[in-house]
Amino acid sequence: MTTYQAPLEEFHFLLHELFHASEQEIEGFSELTPEFTSEILTMGAKVATEIMLPINRSGDEEGCKLENGSVITPKGFVNAFDEIRKGGWTGLDCDPLYGGQGLPITLSLIFGEIFSSCNISLTIYKALTHGAYATILAHGNSIQKNTYLPKLVTCEWTGTMNLTEPHCGTDLGMIKTKAEPISKVEYKITGQKIFISSGDHDLAENIIHLVLAKVPGGPNGVKGISLFIVPKFLVNDDGSMGKKNDLSIGSIEKKMGIHANATCVLNYDGAIGYLLGEKHKGVQTMFTMMNEARLGVGVQSLALAEVAYQSSLIYSKERVQGKSLERDGKFSTSPKPIICHPDVRKNLMNQKSFIEGARALTLWTALLLDKGTRSSDKKSYGLASLLTPVIKGYISDIGFDMTVVGQQIFGGHGYIEEWGMSQLVRDSRIAMIYEGTNGVQAIDLVGRKLNSDGGANIMYLRELVTTYLHQSTVSEEIENEFFVPLKNSLKDLESALKFLLDNGIKNPNAALAGASDFLHLLGIFCIGFMWVKIVSRVSEKKKAGDKINKFLEAKIVTGKYYMANTLPKTMFLATKIEAGDKILMSLEPDQF
Amino acid sequence: MTTYQAPLEEFHFLLHELFHASEQEIEGFSELTPEFTSEILTMGAKVATEIMLPINRSGDEEGCKLENGSVITPKGFVNAFDEIRKGGWTGLDCDPLYGGQGLPITLSLIFGEIFSSCNISLTIYKALTHGAYATILAHGNSIQKNTYLPKLVTCEWTGTMNLTEPHCGTDLGMIKTKAEPISKVEYKITGQKIFISSGDHDLAENIIHLVLAKVPGGPNGVKGISLFIVPKFLVNDDGSMGKKNDLSIGSIEKKMGIHANATCVLNYDGAIGYLLGEKHKGVQTMFTMMNEARLGVGVQSLALAEVAYQSSLIYSKERVQGKSLERDGKFSTSPKPIICHPDVRKNLMNQKSFIEGARALTLWTALLLDKGTRSSDKKSYGLASLLTPVIKGYISDIGFDMTVVGQQIFGGHGYIEEWGMSQLVRDSRIAMIYEGTNGVQAIDLVGRKLNSDGGANIMYLRELVTTYLHQSTVSEEIENEFFVPLKNSLKDLESALKFLLDNGIKNPNAALAGASDFLHLLGIFCIGFMWVKIVSRVSEKKKAGDKINKFLEAKIVTGKYYMANTLPKTMFLATKIEAGDKILMSLEPDQF
Repeated sequence: MTTYQAPLEEFHFLLHELFHASEQEIEGFSELTPEFTSEILTMGAKVATEIMLPINRSGDEEGCKLENGSVITPKGFVNAFDEIRKGGWTGLDCDPLYGGQGLPITLSLIFGEIFSSCNISLTIYKALTHGAYATILAHGNSIQKNTYLPKLVTCEWTGTMNLTEPHCGTDLGMIKTKAEPISKVEYKITGQKIFISSGDHDLAENIIHLVLAKVPGGPNGVKGISLFIVPKFLVNDDGSMGKKNDLSIGSIEKKMGIHANATCVLNYDGAIGYLLGEKHKGVQTMFTMMNEARLGVGVQSLALAEVAYQSSLIYSKERVQGKSLERDGKFSTSPKPIICHPDVRKNLMNQKSFIEGARALTLWTALLLDKGTRSSDKKSYGLASLLTPVIKGYISDIGFDMTVVGQQIFGGHGYIEEWGMSQLVRDSRIAMIYEGTNGVQAIDLVGRKLNSDGGANIMYLRELVTTYLHQSTVSEEIENEFFVPLKNSLKDLESALKFLLDNGIKNPNAALAGASDFLHLLGIFCIGFMWVKIVSRVSEKKKAGDKINKFLEAKIVTGKYYMANTLPKTMFLATKIEAGDKILMSLEPDQF
Repeated sequence: MTTYQAPLEEFHFLLHELFHASEQEIEGFSELTPEFTSEILTMGAKVATEIMLPINRSGDEEGCKLENGSVITPKGFVNAFDEIRKGGWTGLDCDPLYGGQGLPITLSLIFGEIFSSCNISLTIYKALTHGAYATILAHGNSIQKNTYLPKLVTCEWTGTMNLTEPHCGTDLGMIKTKAEPISKVEYKITGQKIFISSGDHDLAENIIHLVLAKVPGGPNGVKGISLFIVPKFLVNDDGSMGKKNDLSIGSIEKKMGIHANATCVLNYDGAIGYLLGEKHKGVQTMFTMMNEARLGVGVQSLALAEVAYQSSLIYSKERVQGKSLERDGKFSTSPKPIICHPDVRKNLMNQKSFIEGARALTLWTALLLDKGTRSSDKKSYGLASLLTPVIKGYISDIGFDMTVVGQQIFGGHGYIEEWGMSQLVRDSRIAMIYEGTNGVQAIDLVGRKLNSDGGANIMYLRELVTTYLHQSTVSEEIENEFFVPLKNSLKDLESALKFLLDNGIKNPNAALAGASDFLHLLGIFCIGFMWVKIVSRVSEKKKAGDKINKFLEAKIVTGKYYMANTLPKTMFLATKIEAGDKILMSLEPDQF
């Protein structure tokens, strides 16, 4: 069976020991004292494990149903969502002006992880609502803000994002949904949207769809797309609920995973919509919330990898099978728990070293984002933008692999649905696809983020790393087992980067060919940097005479494992990147 | 939607151009002329695609049902199995003495691939029957052979393997099922077995269970286990069906995939069983068929990767999305099929270069096995044994990854069950687990196969490779792009091997720590060797003035891609292997 306890000691370490949250000179950070974060995280973890976790497995089994044109969520979801709403867990990082609690993303991201670990399907209803909230907050006029934001903050109403159509996903320029003006503020929306997460349900009284559509007569392609607010039920001027809008649920998709989140086909049949932001700038408007949403997807993967890790760890301690080598160099006479076997141990160490390093990276990125937005620190914001596709793409790729690894530790039981490991794999798989496939993340990284501001963001990262390595005085052990490997890996990064920059301008395909490998290279390297920081911090504490408990000791071992086993992959990836597109693109399509 | 056409041109190339099947001096190979194999493979492919493929998706959706103590397979399975039986497709490589066709494994393995591509759940009913057939053939007495083999060859009766119990899988020494003697030949079998593939169904009139159990008073551990034939219905002396044996179906497991194959809990309540082979030697008896079965599992993964590849290839040609770089160095003005995008192309090349190389490796191993068994060539048999865990473990690990890659090319559609890509991923996942998890394969390779006969098998492989590289005169292009990379990779292999041999004796954990990485290293290297052979063959034909069609040209490009993009990974893996167990084993269980 799966098991989950929120890793509170870990969050405490990252927030306070590593990133010194409450000492950051960022608006709202002084409140993030260890006492405060400990209290609120403990409460959040309690809600998640007591309310969301118990209906996770049954939600997967039952799925959503479409009855009389409306979606019914699995048993217990309505109550659970209500509890979360009542507890005030929906608007943690929302603007207090609209009822939110104004907490930094650095903290709300942790809740995102805990909630996703406990019940990702239920969390997605909330996450998309937050996306709609952020978009209206950034681009809505005052009437729109006052009408929708308070309800979205509390999740009395939920939100959706309507981008994809049957013939177009990534290439939004091809969308066909039409928006015909019927008054100064109203449009008639007509068309079909697919893959709409949380597209319909019985958890809230209204659903606010944000819909990309084309106003006839506008420019071709992405430049002619606008964004509209299309409520399921129209809202009267006094805020009360009006008539049902002209949209219907075509079907619920039967998916590999996240069964308890309704992924809908939505048909708009002249539904009333309200322009959000500028006409013909719908794509930019919608992309406002993309950085944050993509960060959130990386965290979802991490969250499921954490559950897979905890569950397989317990299984590996309880499952007794096969003799193992003892400390005296002889094999045991009786079978031992499988955690004693090196191959199982390796699976556990791969999980542990990835998860802890990746968690540090997501929190660091959130901190950069908070710094960027709350303190207008452009460099930090730029670096967060650079790291966002890495977090979304690399963490969801490896996070998925790690759920597969956790499932593997269970042997045959991992394949049986009852044990829950299969659900983790199936639920995790979507993160590599939605909010832009990981291939698209790689193109965003190499084709856009690397070059924006003349490469300032990657140079800033390089500067932070080299300064760190230069300024720290560490023991020979840390130097040899951490600093040296990171310096070697930095050479791989620089070599790959040089190839991309030298070749990408004259032949974009040479750079695009290595995009996914570069995204992985950067992910591995950045997590390596996190391990260097984590272990340096522990060693600093040791030097200062602080008590080094088992938790902190484990950080050193886990970090060493990462540096010796995962980080060297950057050399292999650099080799692949430098192979470019010459062979890659030389087959004719009919030769495949 | 998924799509499949048997890759007949590929099979022809491997059998006749690469391995010169009909010229091999092995019993039965002279019949494998191009005309014969082409005819029989075409017929087999027709049966598979017309009878098995159409019920693959519906079989997944419907699954098996347990009704009144018996398993009902999905709609169409009874008829399809009957057609396969009537067509004579069940006994291809079985002994003609018992009604088989006596074909070499080299050929029957190809049918295994085609059938698994079309419907893996249905194929497993047949595959396990073959396992039971092989075990009884090798160890049965003449009465047992005459009673069971003719029926198993035709699949009028099917077979199962009963090893696992709730508390033990890999560690068979722990089994509790009891076998109490009641006469000279009869035993009473009592106990519970789980994860029994094809455990019950309505496809055949009888099911012959091969059950591991302990005769009271025997030695402890694996040395006290015996193997029994336990028919679902007892067989009268005249061969007619007798009374139902005392065994029942506890439940059908709800699994991640292969829904149409019933995985059962079987309860033996004093069922009559007949000792097969020697008492207390049941594990050895059952392992007789393991090499072949494990080879078969690797082929199943390959088969599903092939379908994922073909399906995603077609999708990539039909799905139009995003502008791409044209031959003139400018981006197209309109969206293009996604096969034009380097990232998608890379996914396709990864699939293609793995599948074609892995297929060559499985066929080569089957050829070695045929040589070993039909011509008593010990060296070939030993090398086939060495390669078997590699085929099972490496091909199922990467084969699974490649179904995930294929699913990824479909974007959001890949996550929707209706499109079939999710099923490929879910079905493929089991191959990494059953017939011994891939971790167990790695231990078998490093702990047993590497050392058997004093390392003769790995030395034989090394000799074959170096002789090949030494004796061939090739163009500078082939030398630089194929021979040089393979020589480099051989150094990685040798370096890792040296570490394992130097350290493994004094500390087995140092070797076991790198077992899975070594299995991958050897897999990557052997497929690299296959590409060297394939491309050398094409280049030989070129030199001889033969027509080089698009298919053969593609081999050169695909091989180059493999050598530049996949093969260099052996260096990374060698680095990991040489890290040993020092860090790996140093955390205490409570530090995880």
